[in-house]
Amino acid sequence: MDVTKFAIPEIIFGRGSLNYAGQCALRLGARKVLLVSDSGIEEAGWVQRLMDILRKDGIDWVYYPGVSSNPRDFQVEQGAEFYREHGADVIIAIGGGSSMDTAKGVAIIASNGGRIRDYEGANRVNRPLPPMVLITTTAGSGSDISQFCIITDVERAVKMSIITRTLVPNISIVDPLILQTKSETLIIQSAVDALAHAIEAYISTIASPFTAMQSLKAIDLILRYLPQAVATRSMDFLEQLSIASTAASMAFSNASLGAEHALAHSLGGHFDMRHGVIHPILLTAVMRFNLYHAEARMAEIGRVVLDRTVGTPRETALAGIDRLESFFASFDVPLRLRQVIAEADRRYLEPICRMAVNDACNLTNPRPASWQEFLQICEEVW
Amino acid sequence: MDVTKFAIPEIIFGRGSLNYAGQCALRLGARKVLLVSDSGIEEAGWVQRLMDILRKDGIDWVYYPGVSSNPRDFQVEQGAEFYREHGADVIIAIGGGSSMDTAKGVAIIASNGGRIRDYEGANRVNRPLPPMVLITTTAGSGSDISQFCIITDVERAVKMSIITRTLVPNISIVDPLILQTKSETLIIQSAVDALAHAIEAYISTIASPFTAMQSLKAIDLILRYLPQAVATRSMDFLEQLSIASTAASMAFSNASLGAEHALAHSLGGHFDMRHGVIHPILLTAVMRFNLYHAEARMAEIGRVVLDRTVGTPRETALAGIDRLESFFASFDVPLRLRQVIAEADRRYLEPICRMAVNDACNLTNPRPASWQEFLQICEEVW
Repeated sequence: MDVTKFAIPEIIFGRGSLNYAGQCALRLGARKVLLVSDSGIEEAGWVQRLMDILRKDGIDWVYYPGVSSNPRDFQVEQGAEFYREHGADVIIAIGGGSSMDTAKGVAIIASNGGRIRDYEGANRVNRPLPPMVLITTTAGSGSDISQFCIITDVERAVKMSIITRTLVPNISIVDPLILQTKSETLIIQSAVDALAHAIEAYISTIASPFTAMQSLKAIDLILRYLPQAVATRSMDFLEQLSIASTAASMAFSNASLGAEHALAHSLGGHFDMRHGVIHPILLTAVMRFNLYHAEARMAEIGRVVLDRTVGTPRETALAGIDRLESFFASFDVPLRLRQVIAEADRRYLEPICRMAVNDACNLTNPRPASWQEFLQICEEVW
Repeated sequence: MDVTKFAIPEIIFGRGSLNYAGQCALRLGARKVLLVSDSGIEEAGWVQRLMDILRKDGIDWVYYPGVSSNPRDFQVEQGAEFYREHGADVIIAIGGGSSMDTAKGVAIIASNGGRIRDYEGANRVNRPLPPMVLITTTAGSGSDISQFCIITDVERAVKMSIITRTLVPNISIVDPLILQTKSETLIIQSAVDALAHAIEAYISTIASPFTAMQSLKAIDLILRYLPQAVATRSMDFLEQLSIASTAASMAFSNASLGAEHALAHSLGGHFDMRHGVIHPILLTAVMRFNLYHAEARMAEIGRVVLDRTVGTPRETALAGIDRLESFFASFDVPLRLRQVIAEADRRYLEPICRMAVNDACNLTNPRPASWQEFLQICEEVW
C-alpha cells in the first residue's frame, strides 16, 4: 500500500455528551468563545442549552448567528470580522453541516486572512486555525469529523470544496439525544448523505483499510436501522445512525469522495437546494456509472447492503444497487431530478456539469467523469 | 450508550512513510528534536536512516540512546534531564514499545517534573507534553497510537501503567517496510500482543462501537495472516499485521484492557520478561475465566476466530478459545509458565498476583479478578 494518512478529531460520543462542551473549550484554552449556530437550532432550544452549559463552566462567549443553509462566502467573511472584533480565541459550532462549515470558514479567514475563495481546493490553508469544538446536531454531514468545508461562492453560484488537514476540528461532540428534535425528513436526508459518504469513500481511489472498515460499518448500520429509526424515533435506533454517520465521516474525511458529490455540489450551489435532497436521486446512477471500474468493491458494498452475496461479484454489485434503489423508494423523498428542478431550469444542467468536473471530489472517483458523462447521468435521472 | 471518548493520533501509514518523519517534526514546530531509540534498532540501521531523513530536512537533533527492554524509571528521568539540557522541543522515538514508552515517560517528566512514579494510574498528568512523533518498528505494542505508557518501577519491581489522553502522540508513523528486519520470534510475539490488545479491548467494560469495530478487524487479520507472514516474510502479509496492530491499538487505547494485561504487567515487571512472551501462556486461560461474564462478546470473538459459528453462542465462544490455543501451539513459543519462570521462583507468584489486582487494566475486565483468582490462573497454566 502507498503511504496513506488517517486523521480524525478527538470524538466525544454519547447521550449527554453535549454537557462536556464547556470542559472541552477550557481544555483548548478558551477565554472567549465564538459560538456559531443557526435559527433552526436556536428554535429547538439547543443554543440556549449550550449557552447555559458554557455559563456554568464560567466561559465567556459571543454569539454569531449569521448562518444560512448552504453558507455563503460573505457570511463566513463577516463571521471572521466578528471573531476578531470580539477577541475570541476558540470557536464552538452547534448545528448541521451549514453551521459547522460556517465555523470552519470563519476559522480559516480569522487566522489566514483574505477571501474564502482563495482557499478553494485541496491544501491551500497554510496557517494554523483557532481551536474548534464542533457539535453536530444531525447524523449526516460529518463536518464535525472531516477536513472538508463547503461554502457557496455567491458570484459564481458554486459550492466550493475546501479540503485540508487543519480543518479537522480539535474535538467533535456527537450527542444522539439532539436527534430527537429533528424532523423525519431531515433524519432521512442526513442518513442518506452519510450513506453517500460511506459508499463514495469506499470506492475512492485513495481509500485505505482504515477508511474501508468505517465505510462498511456505516453502510450496514444505515441499511439496518434507518427504517426503524424513522418509524419509532427510538433513541436506540437514532443512536445507531449517529454511530453510522461518525464512521462514514472518518471514512470520507480521509478517503475523500467521488463523482456523485462533485455533481451534488455543483447542483446544490446553483439551485441552493439542501445537500441531502440530491443523493437519493444521483447515488445509484453514479454507482452504475462506476460499476466496471470498481467491481470488486461494488460487490463488497452489495454484500453488505444485501447481507449476502448473489452469484458473481458483478451480480452482487448490481443487486446491491437495485436494493439501494428500493431502499430510497421506501421513503417519501424525490427520486427524479424533475421533482426538485423546474423544467425551465433544465438548460442550466450543462454549465453545472461543466463545473462539476473541476470539483475536488471528482479527482478520487474510480472512473474520471467528463462533463458530457455528468450530463448523461443528469438526463438519466431527470 | 453512555458518553465515550475516541482519541487517536494522526496516523501516517504505509511503505516508506518513515520518509515523512522530518516533515512531521517541522509541522510540529521542531527546532531541536530529541531522538529516542535503542541498540537493536541502531544495529538494524534505522536510527541512522532516520538521522539522514532529519538532516535532509534541515532538522537539528540530539540522540538519547538510554533505552532498555522494559524501560526503567531512572532511564526516563535521565532522558528528561537530557531533553532539558539540550533545549529540545519535539520528541521523535523509533522502536518498539520500549523506545516509545521511554519517549512518553521523558515527555511527562520534561513538562511536568517530579518522578515518573508520581504519574502511575489514570489521568494523573496535568500539563501538556512536548509534541511527539512515534515511529513503531513492530506490529504489536501500539504505543505509537495509545494513551498508555508502561515503565518499570525498579524499587518495587513492577511495571507501572500510566494512562492519560495527553500520552496520545501527535503523529504516529507506521512503516511496514521496517518489519522486514525483524526476527520471526519478534513478529510472532508482537502479533500476539496485538491480538491480546484486540481481545481484551473487545470485552472491556468500556468498549464502544468505535473500538469494537477495530478489535474485530485486528483479530480477523492476525488469525488470517500471521502464519503466512511468518512463513513467507512477504511484505503483503507483514503489512496486514501492521494494519491489524494499528487497529488493535485504536481499540485498546480507548477501551483499555483487562485482567490478562494486568497479570502480564505484574509478571513482566518482576521477571523482566518480554511482554510478548507471556500472552500465549495467559490469554486463553483468562478468556475462560471471563467467559460467563461476557458470553455474547466472547461468541463474537469466536465467530471471527473460526470464521463461522458453531451451535450456541457459548459453544462458539469455547470453540474460538480452543482454536486460539491451537493457533498459539502452531508457533514455536512457550505455552506454560514453567517454560519462562524457574521452579525456584514459583513462590513469587503470590505477591505478583496481589500486585496485579491493583493494575489499572484490571478495572475494565468484565469479571473483577481477586489475587486468589489470578493465582489460580497462574497455577492452571504453570
